[in-house]
Amino acid sequence: MRNFDERSITAAVCERVAQASDPHARQISDALVRHLHDFVREIEPTQEEWSQAIAFLTRTGHMCDANRQEFILLSDALGVSMLVDALNHRLPGGATETTVLGPFYVQDPPELPLGANISPGLEGVPLLVTGAAAGSPLAGATVDVWHSDGDGYYDVQQLDDDHGLAMRARLRTAQNGAFHFWMIMPAAYPIPNDGPVGEMLAAQGRHPYRPAHVHFMIAAPAHEQLVTHVFVEGDAYLDSDVVFGVKDSLIRPFAEMSAGIAPDGAQIDQPYRHLHYDFVLAPQRHTA
Amino acid sequence: MRNFDERSITAAVCERVAQASDPHARQISDALVRHLHDFVREIEPTQEEWSQAIAFLTRTGHMCDANRQEFILLSDALGVSMLVDALNHRLPGGATETTVLGPFYVQDPPELPLGANISPGLEGVPLLVTGAAAGSPLAGATVDVWHSDGDGYYDVQQLDDDHGLAMRARLRTAQNGAFHFWMIMPAAYPIPNDGPVGEMLAAQGRHPYRPAHVHFMIAAPAHEQLVTHVFVEGDAYLDSDVVFGVKDSLIRPFAEMSAGIAPDGAQIDQPYRHLHYDFVLAPQRHTA
Repeated sequence: MRNFDERSITAAVCERVAQASDPHARQISDALVRHLHDFVREIEPTQEEWSQAIAFLTRTGHMCDANRQEFILLSDALGVSMLVDALNHRLPGGATETTVLGPFYVQDPPELPLGANISPGLEGVPLLVTGAAAGSPLAGATVDVWHSDGDGYYDVQQLDDDHGLAMRARLRTAQNGAFHFWMIMPAAYPIPNDGPVGEMLAAQGRHPYRPAHVHFMIAAPAHEQLVTHVFVEGDAYLDSDVVFGVKDSLIRPFAEMSAGIAPDGAQIDQPYRHLHYDFVLAPQRHTA
Repeated sequence: MRNFDERSITAAVCERVAQASDPHARQISDALVRHLHDFVREIEPTQEEWSQAIAFLTRTGHMCDANRQEFILLSDALGVSMLVDALNHRLPGGATETTVLGPFYVQDPPELPLGANISPGLEGVPLLVTGAAAGSPLAGATVDVWHSDGDGYYDVQQLDDDHGLAMRARLRTAQNGAFHFWMIMPAAYPIPNDGPVGEMLAAQGRHPYRPAHVHFMIAAPAHEQLVTHVFVEGDAYLDSDVVFGVKDSLIRPFAEMSAGIAPDGAQIDQPYRHLHYDFVLAPQRHTA
């Protein structure tokens, strides 16, 4: 195989990767080569533009460390993460819709009891979150929750000797599937935009904001794990989420409440907000 | 824009990137989104496979430093570099064909006089290279040459306190366009395969070898810069170059010669090889 031109090279590379022993690796490689070559043929990059693309990918890799995942941001900002989410969650009717995990999830967050304040000591409007993991009531489901502070930062963006994990917890649902906890109101925020993805967004004339939301990951035996957010009704960025993650079914009022006895029985001496959401997990799929 | 499914998300992202003020950035972004989404829809990756792809790109970025460019290797191994080369070199008949630059070029290599040995002190079979930069004879053209050692390594792969630049030089053609220099015979070699690209090649059932070759970059006023190799006739990897760079017109005999007076007048007391190649540079394109 020699003497490839701008057309014949694609078949040549596909013929080469057809030697993969694993059929799935072969299928992925073949599709990657065809679509990547089609893209390159469509835009006909100059050698200089090709060099810029190599440099962009390299800088994106160099931005990645334990607390920053620039390739996930890139996937998010190009709608790939939500596309992969959609392909993997053709759910039965009635199940809560899914959205992106995002780059700020932490495995095995601190376990807290029901009713805990997961963001103690932080400035902001208190928020009571109540809900249930349902279908059939799911007792003992794990409910991982995480959120940004009033400035839009997650704990893992600011970890240092004085700042540990915060604004995140794992709760377990009660016998009736219910859970509740306190936090502070989340804010709309820009995804980290001081790197290559920020440059790309600027070049595309796009703002980097996500509407305010609370993250949930809910898991229970015999059910599909649910990864989703609940968005704050009325947020200015609901129609232009930089990662394309908003679905109407995931928007809720975060109701304004007066000081007094809260729905969970707590005595609150200032105005607060209240979100209620009942999550419905889909039954586990059988794998072939 | 909300509630995207696995089909509608592509138009949604394209609509968003259409805000780019630069039409070319808009065109590239639009094409990237469409082809990338088509690829993802075709292979329907699981969330775990998506995570593996993120990790692959991250490790590829982390392999890149001043002496290693893993994203160029990835582009080379997927045939993208040769495709970009083909799109940028629809040359007039008669001009020398092009091939990939590769990751081992160094800007402004050491200038040496015609006839110099560019790989002094290295073990290997001496090789005399003669040729000309022609069309009309190109006096004073710069001829950058570089090659691997007998084990297939370039200098920049082994830079340290004891090892500087070697096996590379910039020459200038004489009045008649001719040049000549001495080196040692290059060897076939594997591209660096201890990183993500090596993993990919293994998964695709591919060897990592390039056939033996000498790199040339030739530049002269009013002509297109020529980036190419000359390959050693008879090499075992000519039909399976891992980067798809071989063209018949770039293969030459590296003739076996007996000790004696070489074509450049040098007295050689051992058998050596001789390569002759006349390069024809295309006239510079007028840009619109």
